[in-house]
Amino acid sequence: MNEMQRSEQGTATGCTCLNVPRAQRLMRDAGLDLLLANSVFNVSYLTGFIQHHWVWDGIQHFMDRNVCRDEAKPLAGFCLDPSKPPFLACNPWVIRHNFVYPAVEIVASSLPSRGLHDNRFAFPPLEYAVHALRERGLEVARIGYEETRLPVYYLDRLREELPRAVFLPADNLFWQIRAVKTPEEIRRLREAFRIATQVYRDTFAMMKPGVALDDIARMQMARAHELGGLWYFNHLWVHQPGAAWDPPPDYRLQPGDEGGCDLGIYYQGYGSDFGRTVSLGPIHPDTQRDYDSLRAVYEAMIEVAKPGNSGADLFHAAQRAIQKYRGGRAAGCLGHGLGLECHEIPALLPTETEALEENMVVQIEVGSHGPPRNSFLFLEDAGLVTAHGWTPLTDLPQDIVVIE
Amino acid sequence: MNEMQRSEQGTATGCTCLNVPRAQRLMRDAGLDLLLANSVFNVSYLTGFIQHHWVWDGIQHFMDRNVCRDEAKPLAGFCLDPSKPPFLACNPWVIRHNFVYPAVEIVASSLPSRGLHDNRFAFPPLEYAVHALRERGLEVARIGYEETRLPVYYLDRLREELPRAVFLPADNLFWQIRAVKTPEEIRRLREAFRIATQVYRDTFAMMKPGVALDDIARMQMARAHELGGLWYFNHLWVHQPGAAWDPPPDYRLQPGDEGGCDLGIYYQGYGSDFGRTVSLGPIHPDTQRDYDSLRAVYEAMIEVAKPGNSGADLFHAAQRAIQKYRGGRAAGCLGHGLGLECHEIPALLPTETEALEENMVVQIEVGSHGPPRNSFLFLEDAGLVTAHGWTPLTDLPQDIVVIE
Repeated sequence: MNEMQRSEQGTATGCTCLNVPRAQRLMRDAGLDLLLANSVFNVSYLTGFIQHHWVWDGIQHFMDRNVCRDEAKPLAGFCLDPSKPPFLACNPWVIRHNFVYPAVEIVASSLPSRGLHDNRFAFPPLEYAVHALRERGLEVARIGYEETRLPVYYLDRLREELPRAVFLPADNLFWQIRAVKTPEEIRRLREAFRIATQVYRDTFAMMKPGVALDDIARMQMARAHELGGLWYFNHLWVHQPGAAWDPPPDYRLQPGDEGGCDLGIYYQGYGSDFGRTVSLGPIHPDTQRDYDSLRAVYEAMIEVAKPGNSGADLFHAAQRAIQKYRGGRAAGCLGHGLGLECHEIPALLPTETEALEENMVVQIEVGSHGPPRNSFLFLEDAGLVTAHGWTPLTDLPQDIVVIE
Repeated sequence: MNEMQRSEQGTATGCTCLNVPRAQRLMRDAGLDLLLANSVFNVSYLTGFIQHHWVWDGIQHFMDRNVCRDEAKPLAGFCLDPSKPPFLACNPWVIRHNFVYPAVEIVASSLPSRGLHDNRFAFPPLEYAVHALRERGLEVARIGYEETRLPVYYLDRLREELPRAVFLPADNLFWQIRAVKTPEEIRRLREAFRIATQVYRDTFAMMKPGVALDDIARMQMARAHELGGLWYFNHLWVHQPGAAWDPPPDYRLQPGDEGGCDLGIYYQGYGSDFGRTVSLGPIHPDTQRDYDSLRAVYEAMIEVAKPGNSGADLFHAAQRAIQKYRGGRAAGCLGHGLGLECHEIPALLPTETEALEENMVVQIEVGSHGPPRNSFLFLEDAGLVTAHGWTPLTDLPQDIVVIE
């Protein structure tokens, strides 16, 4: 529970992660009266309520299972009309241990419970959501829903209960709103990166010949937790050059090993994602050469990661640097946005032509796996787009980490 | 990755977790040619492929993000006709590090890639699934889908691509098939419980006045991982009697503390879930009295947890014991099935009238929170339904754990 936020300063609507003016502008442009969220990420975003891992599919189900067979996910609504408060339709058990923005109305326990369903599931949050929509006079509203996340049954039931409402797919709208971060989101990202940076330093200090990758993973879990974060992934692929990527967990480091590491730490719902290349002993000249060319691609992208340029501009800058410094050899994923989810917009793609704005987060990520060494070399960093350009979220040096 | 299984013995279809005869019988009864899964649990169940936590929403998205904006979940199909192999429609990156049953056909990388979509998501697994369905001659099939989990967009696209197929909701069918466990599923559950039992013993050994709950959580994470499991939840609510349930993570144990603990450990996709009550120092007589009455409810349920009886029979046995031993005071959740998910059928409900069968798993769970002590007392165990009755999956004693 240490990643939960128990209290925080509210804005006018009490929502400190939701970018309210941006949401209102984009909803107005799309002609939407309400955004209805059901994914763990967008419910968190609209209400402040954060649930990781087992809890979303777990406690919700858990607590209602003996009343009605229930797989229900919470549903959250954000109204364009500021006189209609945002709501969270949810089993009361789910929010028992969680922070929710003060302005969000919890619609759950106040409603009468229905009877048992014979060997069937039931969905209290759906009924609560319908109730909340009616209370807000949204029977004839235009409602944006998450078309790639909302389960079929939910939309069927909503349409049945609100036949005069218009339901419109709004996944991309959610992505667009979330692309520009609020100060509170940036604070959480910074904290996730601060914790992860410390865990990286501890990792490098622990990496010695004879140490097993699994032992490092366990140290990372415990250390992240100790620092107030939640460890959510570790990928450590340091091994003899040329060996298959992904050594087994009991692999013990040897002198001359090369490779990289990537680590994900959550802090209050926001995750770190950055990685480095490691060499156990002096860096092989071929490795340094390949790495330098990746670094040149990385620098070329950072150069254009500023307001007014687009993801496409970063993509094209990378392609030019790939030609110039790597003879056309690819340089991996290139990068992505980052926030509540590990991969958000902007994508770094030729199709991503919308201008970057201040307070977007851009992950820049280059990697290479090929002859003569066949080690996977990697450099990944996230930075904030500011008026003055891209500023990294970690102070960990970008050079290859040399373990003596 | 230590929870992944890299190799295993196959059955005729290569599927060792899927209960093939039961699936075929229930599909035939329901008139289904194909079961189509998209949830992490049912995809795992049909294909052997296990992904926890970030990986499902992460790596899938991650690897395709720079090709096409992608939120796609894998789709898996199991055909009634044994001449048509099961399939997994999936981005190749996702299965790169994962075990999949040998009989399952991977439909992904062999297909030509589509172009980029302008600032929109795209769903390779959907296209691959359509391809697999066509290849199996299922254009006019009856296809069961997960109505409470399949996103709206997926069904819309499938209907568009396969206008002559009939799509039928099949969530309950999945639950019913999964209710009777295969030997491989039971092996995994036993292993999850073995690891969790050891972590509990280590927890009790660590619980002394002055130790913070958070320190115990970190030990559990590292220890579970060391034993080959994956820690996925910890709930430890030991504190002074009468204090609010859920002490803060930095709460330090004190003499006289009471409460309980619950712990979830995954092993190869299957999770433990059992808990105990703890007393720091001698057990207060009121606590023992309340606990004994809970124990009597627990024993009354175990007595009837055998083939031929139903979840309703367990529910009613509990109600009788609640009257007799607790003067009608409720005894918590009572319990649930357990397997790939923490809460499966059978539910312990008056509506759950289907007979228990051998190799079902029944969780029995009693708890109480009330005057005069206002500690939350708890006893939770899972057991296998055998011809000879309910046999527990852990050998941890059911008594209150006394910390001297």
